[in-house]
Amino acid sequence: MLNTSAELDRLSLNQITTERRTLRETVDACARKGIGWLGAWRHKIQEDPVRSAKIIRDAGLRTSSLCRGGFFPAASAAERRKRIDDNRHAIDEAAALGTDLLVLVCGPAPNRDLAAAREMVSNGIAEIEGYAQSCGVRLGIEPLHPMYAAERSVIVTLEQANQIAARFAPDRVGVIVDVFHVWWDPKVYDEITHAGLRIYGFHVSDWLVPMPDLLMGRCMMGQGIIEIAKLRNAVEQAGYRGPIEVEIFNEKIWDMPVDDLLRDIKRRYLDTV
Amino acid sequence: MLNTSAELDRLSLNQITTERRTLRETVDACARKGIGWLGAWRHKIQEDPVRSAKIIRDAGLRTSSLCRGGFFPAASAAERRKRIDDNRHAIDEAAALGTDLLVLVCGPAPNRDLAAAREMVSNGIAEIEGYAQSCGVRLGIEPLHPMYAAERSVIVTLEQANQIAARFAPDRVGVIVDVFHVWWDPKVYDEITHAGLRIYGFHVSDWLVPMPDLLMGRCMMGQGIIEIAKLRNAVEQAGYRGPIEVEIFNEKIWDMPVDDLLRDIKRRYLDTV
Repeated sequence: MLNTSAELDRLSLNQITTERRTLRETVDACARKGIGWLGAWRHKIQEDPVRSAKIIRDAGLRTSSLCRGGFFPAASAAERRKRIDDNRHAIDEAAALGTDLLVLVCGPAPNRDLAAAREMVSNGIAEIEGYAQSCGVRLGIEPLHPMYAAERSVIVTLEQANQIAARFAPDRVGVIVDVFHVWWDPKVYDEITHAGLRIYGFHVSDWLVPMPDLLMGRCMMGQGIIEIAKLRNAVEQAGYRGPIEVEIFNEKIWDMPVDDLLRDIKRRYLDTV
Repeated sequence: MLNTSAELDRLSLNQITTERRTLRETVDACARKGIGWLGAWRHKIQEDPVRSAKIIRDAGLRTSSLCRGGFFPAASAAERRKRIDDNRHAIDEAAALGTDLLVLVCGPAPNRDLAAAREMVSNGIAEIEGYAQSCGVRLGIEPLHPMYAAERSVIVTLEQANQIAARFAPDRVGVIVDVFHVWWDPKVYDEITHAGLRIYGFHVSDWLVPMPDLLMGRCMMGQGIIEIAKLRNAVEQAGYRGPIEVEIFNEKIWDMPVDDLLRDIKRRYLDTV
């Protein structure tokens, strides 16, 4: 299967890639360019999820996921309770958008204690998964690159995400495979196989060399060094057939005219994913 | 054993921490401050290893290791051969300095193919380990943080370093545990136990939050979020009793007056390592 390109009807635009645009600007551009999926972000839809859902639907798009729940670890029980409440809101918003997938970025440790923070993540997911199921929403644990361990996520490998997901039913809690976060991992192919049908989402972008910045250094697929097609083939061998989200944090990409950007994304997606 | 501080006679100054000083300036300052070990870098001693050895010895210091061999992967067989030759020079330099430890930073992939590059690393170590032994030099594989996978090392976890080391005799090839590179890893304590007496070196620094830069964002022990004492206790439980190198890439630290810097290092080392 290597060297075949991904099908265009699976292409999803993750909304962070057009961070400078409103929801309406983004979905209208997707409609013009024939991109049928949107990966939504909460800060873009939160004000009115129902109206946001209508904007997306009226443009003929479907929502592949909502980013992001998570951020479970906190120093006090009261603060952890607030995080749980916020996750319930995120689940409501996902349901309102008509997507069955909430992506979890699990959060950093409130102090130096990684083991305790990782336990808080497991406990947090256990607290929300029943509610999520009652809303028809699955939870996708996204391991982040270890360079984000101190500030964004104590969940940093696919192996670790798989181990947490395994405590829950396979149709309730799974994992998100984002090539930017996992490409470096010597065990990534074994763990993709291991995840199997628990792979709920697949995100693409690329790793620029030299890497200019921890957060904003992602680039367009094909401009970096990630073996994207090899990873895509692996997730497909494992059974994943869902949307493929293009998710790029990059100031230059954010400043591009949106139609030019979406044209580039389509071309790069067909050439390299 | 937690909360006991490391003994001062195990403190070693890794020479990158005083990158702006000559070898003589560094060892004289160490002698004034009662620091008995130096972790040497090749670019500081390469011009004349024998004379460098005398400078170190005359100041009453010992050399804990030489940084660095490695960088095995390359696009052509001829270039890989050159890298092997360079590693032999590094082994000669380590022997000239009187240290029995060459630290290996294994190198990035010459293209996108990580699996092939990792194979080149194993093959490279196999090619030099006999020569190293004949010179009385052990090889310490240092897994780097995964944020360096694209530019410095395809060896990114202690598990992976342990697996490569295991192909060789335990007194010839081992691993270096650098807290900055491994702290985030959910398996780090298991793999430290697994490494056991193959732990040839232990490096300390800290991870600043927010992290300002991929390369130059290390900070003084205690200023960041790494569980340094927990990691030190783990390597000691595994049997490590050798020097503890302080290795900090940081422009501000490089600009400090060297005596002030070494005073800070001693205090931070006693307080937090």
